[in-house]
This record gives sequence, structure tokens and C-alpha cells, in this order.
Amino acid sequence: MKRIYLDHAATTPMDERVLKAMAPYFTEKYGNASSLHSFGTEAREAVDKAREKVAGILNAESDEIIFNSGGTEGDNMALRGVAYANKRKGKEIITTKIEHHAIEHTTEKLKAGGFEATFLDVNKQGFISLAELERKANSNTILVSVMHANNEIGTIEPIKEIGDICRKKDIYFHTDAVQSVGKEKIDVRKMNIDLLSSSAHKFYGPKGVGFLFVRKGMKIRPIIHGGGHEFGLRSGTENVAGIVGLARALELADKEMERESARERKIVKKIVKETLEIKNSWLNGPEIGKRRLSNNVNLGFDFVEGESMVLMMDDVGIACSTGSACSTKDLSPSHVLLSIGLKPWQAHGSLRLTLGRGTREQDIGYVTNNIRDIVEKLREISPLRKGINIGKYEKGFEEKHKH
Amino acid sequence: MKRIYLDHAATTPMDERVLKAMAPYFTEKYGNASSLHSFGTEAREAVDKAREKVAGILNAESDEIIFNSGGTEGDNMALRGVAYANKRKGKEIITTKIEHHAIEHTTEKLKAGGFEATFLDVNKQGFISLAELERKANSNTILVSVMHANNEIGTIEPIKEIGDICRKKDIYFHTDAVQSVGKEKIDVRKMNIDLLSSSAHKFYGPKGVGFLFVRKGMKIRPIIHGGGHEFGLRSGTENVAGIVGLARALELADKEMERESARERKIVKKIVKETLEIKNSWLNGPEIGKRRLSNNVNLGFDFVEGESMVLMMDDVGIACSTGSACSTKDLSPSHVLLSIGLKPWQAHGSLRLTLGRGTREQDIGYVTNNIRDIVEKLREISPLRKGINIGKYEKGFEEKHKH
Repeated sequence: MKRIYLDHAATTPMDERVLKAMAPYFTEKYGNASSLHSFGTEAREAVDKAREKVAGILNAESDEIIFNSGGTEGDNMALRGVAYANKRKGKEIITTKIEHHAIEHTTEKLKAGGFEATFLDVNKQGFISLAELERKANSNTILVSVMHANNEIGTIEPIKEIGDICRKKDIYFHTDAVQSVGKEKIDVRKMNIDLLSSSAHKFYGPKGVGFLFVRKGMKIRPIIHGGGHEFGLRSGTENVAGIVGLARALELADKEMERESARERKIVKKIVKETLEIKNSWLNGPEIGKRRLSNNVNLGFDFVEGESMVLMMDDVGIACSTGSACSTKDLSPSHVLLSIGLKPWQAHGSLRLTLGRGTREQDIGYVTNNIRDIVEKLREISPLRKGINIGKYEKGFEEKHKH
Repeated sequence: MKRIYLDHAATTPMDERVLKAMAPYFTEKYGNASSLHSFGTEAREAVDKAREKVAGILNAESDEIIFNSGGTEGDNMALRGVAYANKRKGKEIITTKIEHHAIEHTTEKLKAGGFEATFLDVNKQGFISLAELERKANSNTILVSVMHANNEIGTIEPIKEIGDICRKKDIYFHTDAVQSVGKEKIDVRKMNIDLLSSSAHKFYGPKGVGFLFVRKGMKIRPIIHGGGHEFGLRSGTENVAGIVGLARALELADKEMERESARERKIVKKIVKETLEIKNSWLNGPEIGKRRLSNNVNLGFDFVEGESMVLMMDDVGIACSTGSACSTKDLSPSHVLLSIGLKPWQAHGSLRLTLGRGTREQDIGYVTNNIRDIVEKLREISPLRKGINIGKYEKGFEEKHKH
């Protein structure tokens, strides 16, 4: 059976060229980068070279790139590391209602630990209001954390403008760029970014490795202590192969970004056009264009359940998702979709298709035909359609998702 | 030139069989283990199978194995996670003076944050005193953390006896088993271990992945928050390939443990015998036998500097270390060697050789001949030998290494 992978926002296949770059560091050049001997030196050189590559692409300095285990760790360190290092300056963290759980839950933990948290609203397309940020950021605010691109609906937030506001008000600015690195051009200097987290497996690199950009001179504490690796900010033996793979993957993504984005956007348009012909369907998130990730489609269908759609799509060989894959099969409705104003039962009916390098235009007919068939089948058996169970979905959700 | 790697305590080459097990999970079975579709399911199954394998080898339950990024993260979570979850019960952490920096520095951070820390002394061979532990552990003690095997001098602590004391006194017991997993038989039930940290790259697995054993029912908090992966204890997309590699590596190490230990111990004896013929030399750590890691040799030489030895050994193709490679080229004398009673200038003269699967008996003559030559050369030019600079090494060290 055909297998079509349309879940690149969850993770990507590793690029063969990335694997090739990593290969020597598994069984031949296996030294510990902290060792004094030549095995150590060749590992150290590989890590240094990777660091320079990553820094160069983001317009950062080499020693501003802190390699770690991925986006979740980076998000945790950005929030907790800044909060505890600056608690004498202020107590408030401003973030948004549509962040990844790594930001959302860490902020809630900090709140429980005595910090204050403000969650900015977003509009129907998922954009925050710069005016609201400007109004709310105050002398008690120590950190603003706004994701660069949303993992569910593809909204690209106005990062440069947020960075400008934060710089003007002397507040640290972190962006969770897990979905955008390798897909959108990022210049940490021009955008006034102080902290940026990223994960290699989202851009055809290996799982289990990422980095946090930490602007030089800023006050931050490590969250993992030990041998003092990564300029004292992240201890633990460097994952040399992973780091080499991350850098190679970023290099490739950066080089191919423009062409690949244009290619994906063209296919996205075709999918959206064909699926919106289905009755009672809509596009979640911004309109297709520059303010939306080029590979993201998020569709809403009245009277169907997203989980059932995903499983039926899987039966015909198409891998996609509903909500986000990052919450370990949590079946509560997406906080992102609720935040853009969907009702719980509408949020349950979403289907996310995220394209990637392997997505071929000629497969799209197969995909959209199946979506059409599956929506029809599910609607036929839907209790929601008959209005029976809507209450079940709505009850309690507002309470749960209130911050 | 011949290249002989004798630094397996720093890191090991990945076993080809491990790489083979991991290979499909890079570019083919690349799903996110949290995804609902078949790509996700095959990743989830691989992670589950790996978890069962690891649990089986340690006599743990599957849901007691928390995969993470390695030993340093595991050590951090064990200490911080237990301390903050149990702070109402008590404030004291008991550990030893010879722990890895991941334990040492994290304990110091906890101390700075209001906890109390007791660092147990060790004797000349690096063993703690069970009587001292018994005496010091009290109702204010919430955690005892004693490493299973020391990374520098190979001392294997009496883990079972420590576990018994802790269980009796109702205190949680963590062991940093980074050096022993895959080399020593471990049964977490019989040994009354509550927490155990481990890192795959120390037993021929990949870097950047490890696990923390967390006994079911114990009170502990995660240190990385997000999507709720790993039973809510460690968020972040699972490093599927890494986890599969870790489990395969552990399986192989476990299967070959007895034969490989015996083989290494035989070579170790030969090295020790030949090098102790050098005048003013000694063996650091316990005598060769069951209470010392089978692959560890740590030699002391009066009047030579370890760093110079390592570099000269490297010049003839032999990779070894002085102190530990885990402290990013920190050249202060090893806190472990100072703790077993060496003078700073003696600690500086140590040479650690750690053997592994690739170590061949026929290369040992080359190694010991070079050690002999290099010690001789360095002594000829040594200012220490003339007693000129000893003061420089001693000054201030006692202060620095006092807890």
C-alpha cells in the first residue's frame, strides 16, 4: 500500500545527507569532545564546526549556541533559567495562549513557584496583538516568550516587532522556533531575539538533539549542572553525531528553503482548494501566504471527530494528525484551536496535514479524495451531527483551558 | 600510526550491532512515537520494546525506566526531583566526596537553595564507610546518592548494603551507575535501589541518550516539563533511534559481560604488573579484583604531570586520560584523587587507562613500554623532582575542595 507521510510538524525523516555526515561519528570518530587526546580533539573540532555553522545561519556568535537534547529542554531552560536568574528584577512572564506545552506547562510551574504569568490572547488567525503586548509589558516583566510559528495552525508571529518592543522595554525575549527553524529566515540580531529554541528532528535532522540560542551577556542559569559543558550552560557529554547531524540538516534546510517553501505552498494551495469544496469545512489559521508556515494545512470539518479521521486516513496509508502530536496521545481538544475561537466540538474535528520534502504533488488527488470520502462516512455515523452529544465536549473545557 | 584507545570510561565506540539496530529509525521508521498513525505506532512499539528490554536486564518494571538525554540529566533529576518533591519531609542529601561533577555540582546548587548536604569521606581505596552512613543518615535525610562505580579509580561501592541501610531508614537511595551499567550485574530490587542513572555511550551505545530508573510509587518531580512523555516524568519527543540503540547496547553488554570482564581483568593485571616496575609509581584505587571495575587502571607517578603524559601518549597513538574527561578540560587536580588522600602534586601525576572491547592483549607491550619511556623523559625535565614548585600545587586546594 501507498504510504504518504503528511505529519512533518510532528517529526521529519532524517535526510540521507544528514545521516552521511553523522556516520563517521558513531563508530570511528567516537571520542569524547572533552578528552585531551586526538580522539577527543577530532570530536571537539566537529562540535565547534557545527556550532559555527548554526551560528552563521542565524547571524549569531558561535558561543551563543548551546546544544541540548531538543526543543522541550530549550524551552524549559529559557523560561526557568531566565526566571530564576532575574527574580530580583521582576516576577512576570508574558507568553501566549497558543504555545507548545513545553512553554505552557513550564510557565504554569513557574507560576506555582511564585512567578506571575500573563497569557496573551490571539485573534482568529492565531496572531497576538502587538498593542496588547506593548500595554501589558511592564517593569515587573522579565521575559516575553512568543513562539515564532505555531505547530498546529502555522501562524507566523511578528517576531521582529515583538523583539523591538522587548528591546525598547529592556525585557528578555524568547521565541520557541521549533517549527520555523529551517523553514523561515531567522536573524537573531535584526529580530532582537535574546533566546531561541530549536530541535533538529523538525528539519530532517536526528531526534534527541537541539539548541538554545542564548544572546551573549544575558542573565540566565543552567537547568542541568555537571561538568560545565557548553560554556557552563548545559552539562553532559556532547552528542557529537547528533550535533554534526543537526548542523548539516540546518545547512541543507537553509540552502533549499526558498525553493522548498514555494513548492510546498503550491501543493498546500491545491489541498486547501480541493478540500474546502467539502461542505461545512474551513481552514484554521491564517490564509495561505507569507504569514503562515509554507507546509501547514489545518482543516476544520463540522460533525466529525479528528481522531477517527486520523485513524481512517491511516487505514488508506496517509499519516496526518489532529491537534498536535506532542502531547502523547492526549485526546482533549487543542488549546490552540480553542484559543482562536473554535468550540470544543469544532476543535475536535480538525485535521492537520503538514507537508515536507517527500510530499509529491501527484499524490494530492489521492489525499483529498480520501479526505472527502472519510468526512462523508464519518458524518453518516456522527452522533454530533444529530446534536446529541455536543454538551459532552463543551462541559468543563472552559474551566480547564482558562489561565 | 597505530591508534590504541584506552579511554573507555570517557566514552566508547558505538558497537556496529547497535548501529544496525538503530539504522531503520533514522530514515525509514521515523515517526514520532506520540503520533496516532502507523508511523507513530511503529516508533512507539520500538520504544516500548526497548523499555522492556532495559527493565528486564535490571529486574525493573517497564514503567520504571525513564529515557532521557544521558547520565548528567539523570543525576540532576534524581537529586533535584527528589529534593523538591520531599522538602517537607526533610532537607538533607547525603552523598560522597568522589561523585561525578553532575552529582557534586547539583548537590552544591541544592545546598545554595536551602537544602543541606553531607559529603561522606572515602578511604584510601575510595570506599565509603557503611558505619558512617548508618550514623549520619537521620530523619532529616531525604536522599542518599552514592555512585555505583567510580569513573576515575574504578571503586565499586557496596551498593546493596547501602540500599539496605536506606530502606531500613526509609530514605530514598539513588546511585549514579553511569560507569557500571553494562559492566556489573545490577538488580534494582535485590539491591534496594530507588533511582539509578545511566548513559548509553558508556556501554557502546549512542551519545545523547540515557535513562533514569525511578522506582514505582516514589515521590519525584520532573525537571523538564511539556507534553508529558515518559509517564509524565520527562517531556520531549522520544529519541527513538537512540533509545533502540541504548537497549541493544545494554542487551549486548549484559550478554557478554562475564566473558569481557574476565578478558579485560587479565589485561589490566598485565598492565599493572608491568607499569608498577617503574620506580615511584603506584596504583590508585582498590586492588584488582571484584571490588574494582574490570577495565580500570589508574596509575600514579611521582614527579610527572598527568596532562603532559596524556599528550605524549597521544603522540605515540595511545588515547588515555588523567583525572576525568567529564570536566571539559578542567586542569585542576581530581577531587577523587584528593579524596583518597593524594597530595595535589601526586594527583596531578595520575594516568587513567580504561580498557574496552577493542583492547587487544598484544598491544599492551607497546603501551607499557611507552609509559615507561614517557615517565622517564618527563622526570628528566621535571621541576617537581627538584622540589621547586610543589607549593604551587598545594596552595589553596584544600580550601577549594572542602565541602
